[in-house]
Amino acid sequence: MLMDRLMDRIIALKSPIVVGLDPRFENLPEDLRTRAISAHGKTPKACAEAILEFNKALIDTLCQVVPAVKPQSAFYELLGVEGVRAYDETCRYAQSKGMIVIGDVKRGDIGSTALGYSKAYLGEISIEGEAFRAFDNDFITINPYLGDDNTKEFIADVDACDKGVFVLVKTSNPSSSQIQNLRVEGKAIYEIVAGQVEAWSEKRVGKHGYSSVGAVVGATYPAEAKVLRHIMKTTCFLVPGYGAQGGGGADIVECFDVKGLGAIVNSSRGIIFAFQNKSYSHLNYTDAALRATLDMRDDINDNLEAVQKKYW
Amino acid sequence: MLMDRLMDRIIALKSPIVVGLDPRFENLPEDLRTRAISAHGKTPKACAEAILEFNKALIDTLCQVVPAVKPQSAFYELLGVEGVRAYDETCRYAQSKGMIVIGDVKRGDIGSTALGYSKAYLGEISIEGEAFRAFDNDFITINPYLGDDNTKEFIADVDACDKGVFVLVKTSNPSSSQIQNLRVEGKAIYEIVAGQVEAWSEKRVGKHGYSSVGAVVGATYPAEAKVLRHIMKTTCFLVPGYGAQGGGGADIVECFDVKGLGAIVNSSRGIIFAFQNKSYSHLNYTDAALRATLDMRDDINDNLEAVQKKYW
Repeated sequence: MLMDRLMDRIIALKSPIVVGLDPRFENLPEDLRTRAISAHGKTPKACAEAILEFNKALIDTLCQVVPAVKPQSAFYELLGVEGVRAYDETCRYAQSKGMIVIGDVKRGDIGSTALGYSKAYLGEISIEGEAFRAFDNDFITINPYLGDDNTKEFIADVDACDKGVFVLVKTSNPSSSQIQNLRVEGKAIYEIVAGQVEAWSEKRVGKHGYSSVGAVVGATYPAEAKVLRHIMKTTCFLVPGYGAQGGGGADIVECFDVKGLGAIVNSSRGIIFAFQNKSYSHLNYTDAALRATLDMRDDINDNLEAVQKKYW
Repeated sequence: MLMDRLMDRIIALKSPIVVGLDPRFENLPEDLRTRAISAHGKTPKACAEAILEFNKALIDTLCQVVPAVKPQSAFYELLGVEGVRAYDETCRYAQSKGMIVIGDVKRGDIGSTALGYSKAYLGEISIEGEAFRAFDNDFITINPYLGDDNTKEFIADVDACDKGVFVLVKTSNPSSSQIQNLRVEGKAIYEIVAGQVEAWSEKRVGKHGYSSVGAVVGATYPAEAKVLRHIMKTTCFLVPGYGAQGGGGADIVECFDVKGLGAIVNSSRGIIFAFQNKSYSHLNYTDAALRATLDMRDDINDNLEAVQKKYW
């Protein structure tokens, strides 16, 4: 079962970390940019090729120390069709290196359309009897605003194809409170969504006590995370907001259970662009990313140890 | 201004209708399917090519009678990169025929990522000083669950590039009430979101009294639509749910203002697959779509006339 495999790998690597592959062409190392523009001109294709080369090198280095990558679809879609191709090839390359891919696509729609998105990223389509997979991610993120007839389409493929979802419950951004923290009869919206997610999750629990139906809970809201950890006992948290968005190791401990499992923390810019950070600027970009990842791992593990939640 | 141009065209054609281009390969006319598979085998490329041919023929016919098309991204993404290419080419072809394209992508993310999605669909990117547009839609649909720091990124491009958005307020699907109808201090979530949308809209009003910041309001919830029409006086409604989802002409009159403007009604399957409907099965698929569109136009106009809202 997918969540069991993700947790096995987190435990083996002592690393509850997913690296966000959110590349921006203008932030890539200069030699990559120059080479791509020499080959393809100042075009979206040049950007897409440079990003793919950058991602592959990061994956080659990081697959030894983290279990998963999370490409953010927006940064590929903004390059059009060539960017979407780079997204797809990045996902496939990461899987070929044994990594689990969390496609950060935040899709959500009415039932019949949600079915289409689910087939696009988790399930398969049939073309006159032949089966095909479009993007074939492992997990994707989904948006709950349209209700259950959206979510159930994705969960059908979680079950049928051994895939997974992380439902947006409490996002990491400053304005997430505008809707998510509104209170209905004493309960915040994020608590209501959390209750629905836990109801799906608890029917699908694997050997580590968690299912492949997870929740997005931002590192930037530790008070909410503490409440949510209590509501969603079998739900693994995908935790964005560490690093560039302001969350630190002390903020994310509430996302983990008493044993130190149950969460995977994302960092994007803080790792992939670590070579631009003074602390790592003496290193090339892959070594800088590796060093930043190991420092993040130590920060998380030290903070978990401080509250006696360290698993390993 | 984009919304002015959309309304000019609605008025000229007496047709407050957008045709949803939600193609499914298995529902295409048999000769299109056979031809594509002969050329490309049983592959996603064959499906994408057949869909593109189908869409172009529909656009050629319908551009005379409706102002806009609304391709639903899910049905293209499920064919992978080739499907996304067909999405892009469909949008460009419709624009070349004078149609306005509403990209039904329902994107939404944290601020820095929402900026990426906005650049992908509404704005432009700069590659070492050269400007490019990725998908270059006119309007897109966006999801409000992440709050204002999501939405404001799209609205920046609405202003900078004369584009538009339709924010999901009350969606047409059966489970939309689960979150959208929860009540906070006497107000439903959809009313709260509506208030935010109207605040953006009222600062951007054009010659017809509406802005390019619109709202999605399902045809399947006429009671809610009536409330929302009152809250959002300067906000144009994109109205899904007519036809296959169960909404009829009598259900959508509440979405229009007292003059009979302020809404554009979507039909997808009911038009593009009209050739499969007994009433139109004696016609080829483009003629069937044309006839179904004219019947829908008459149904809407008759119902607007019945409540003395008919504009033309």
